[in-house]
Amino acid sequence: MKHVKGATHWVIPDGYIPPVSSGELLSHESICVLNCNTEDANLMVTVYFEDRPPLENISVVVKGKRTNHIRTSSLQKDSEYIPVGVPYALEVESDIAVIVQYSRLDATQPELALMSTIAYPL
Amino acid sequence: MKHVKGATHWVIPDGYIPPVSSGELLSHESICVLNCNTEDANLMVTVYFEDRPPLENISVVVKGKRTNHIRTSSLQKDSEYIPVGVPYALEVESDIAVIVQYSRLDATQPELALMSTIAYPL
Amino acid sequence: MKHVKGATHWVIPDGYIPPVSSGELLSHESICVLNCNTEDANLMVTVYFEDRPPLENISVVVKGKRTNHIRTSSLQKDSEYIPVGVPYALEVESDIAVIVQYSRLDATQPELALMSTIAYPL
Amino acid sequence: MKHVKGATHWVIPDGYIPPVSSGELLSHESICVLNCNTEDANLMVTVYFEDRPPLENISVVVKGKRTNHIRTSSLQKDSEYIPVGVPYALEVESDIAVIVQYSRLDATQPELALMSTIAYPL
Repeated sequence: MKHVKGATHWVIPDGYIPPVSSGELLSHESICVLNCNTEDANLMVTVYFEDRPPLENISVVVKGKRTNHIRTSSLQKDSEYIPVGVPYALEVESDIAVIVQYSRLDATQPELALMSTIAYPL
Repeated sequence: MKHVKGATHWVIPDGYIPPVSSGELLSHESICVLNCNTEDANLMVTVYFEDRPPLENISVVVKGKRTNHIRTSSLQKDSEYIPVGVPYALEVESDIAVIVQYSRLDATQPELALMSTIAYPL
Repeated sequence: MKHVKGATHWVIPDGYIPPVSSGELLSHESICVLNCNTEDANLMVTVYFEDRPPLENISVVVKGKRTNHIRTSSLQKDSEYIPVGVPYALEVESDIAVIVQYSRLDATQPELALMSTIAYPL
Repeated sequence: MKHVKGATHWVIPDGYIPPVSSGELLSHESICVLNCNTEDANLMVTVYFEDRPPLENISVVVKGKRTNHIRTSSLQKDSEYIPVGVPYALEVESDIAVIVQYSRLDATQPELALMSTIAYPL
């Protein structure tokens, strides 16, 4: 059986949830996590801001042999969500190796824009 | 002669085939593979989903000293294709070192959007 | 306590501030820096051009446990800014480990375009 | 004096020059090279195709302490250029360490689309 690789610590410096949506699609971002292991991956997300202390210990589970495209707008801790229209950054820690990609769809204008990058493994 | 480098194992966590196309271009994704070797590269692709077991052992050949921009919509195993409009992830394994880049063209709106990233080598 | 990782030296070869903005959003680029350390990170930015010597020693501070999405149009040294509509490149050096991502929003046309990539760590 | 880093061998699997331009901007791709060294970098570019042998030994010079955003449509060998509308891949070799980023602007529709990624260092 092949040894499962990846990393347990990832960061995405450029987070931003566009406050406006128009046209058919909703502006959103996703952290797309792939878990090639058979067991579940327990993720712990930290959100960094420009002008206040980080929001810590947001937990997410990605099942074994599954991917999970997690909308950043769904991340919450004690009913606190990431505000829209604010620059922020994400740190993702996992108890087992996973792979993380970040993508944003901006539909501020009806004709959408996309961007994506593999997150940076620490 | 120079030793050929690259990696034999790549992943793309953010796969998604946009279900809608409008305007002149078709919404699609491609896994762009470069094989700098003189011999053919035999690829084995695994597709991971959010809510069901992976689709495994999809084989693709990239000839020696060639590139192949493979539409993900063309990947199939026993007549099973990747469904459109569904979040998924890709794992690409090769018997020899290659380099993999992932790109998406979304033409949900007539004015298209693009995103691209080098895949993550394991 | 976990050891803080990242890199102290990053480059972005493709810098370009679009000279035109239309629609609701302003064309701009940002270097998005995440500082996971508790202490401040002191950055030194160098701007390279195609046809003249680099603009050196632009200093920026990113506070501890904060992110900073720095507009490249705000970078200046002795009142000299990066001109718009000119290809350039960026080198970012930090006294402590940080993570850098580069993103561009082009609103030359009312319907914006986005691109992003993790910078290259040296 | 600081040791100059980077890599001497880079690849970009997803090359494609959009055949159509509309609106104010021209569809194009660029390989953006940063040379942090004081001496010139001598690049040798190879273009790989899907259905024919590679086009080899295209030479480009990037001056010391300069960046060069090279339009792929300008690359030529014995008056042979990269055809538009054809999937291809790029390999860039340099005699000294440089950093390479690839970007595409697609103006097939008047409202342009962008994509970018750091090239893959071998």
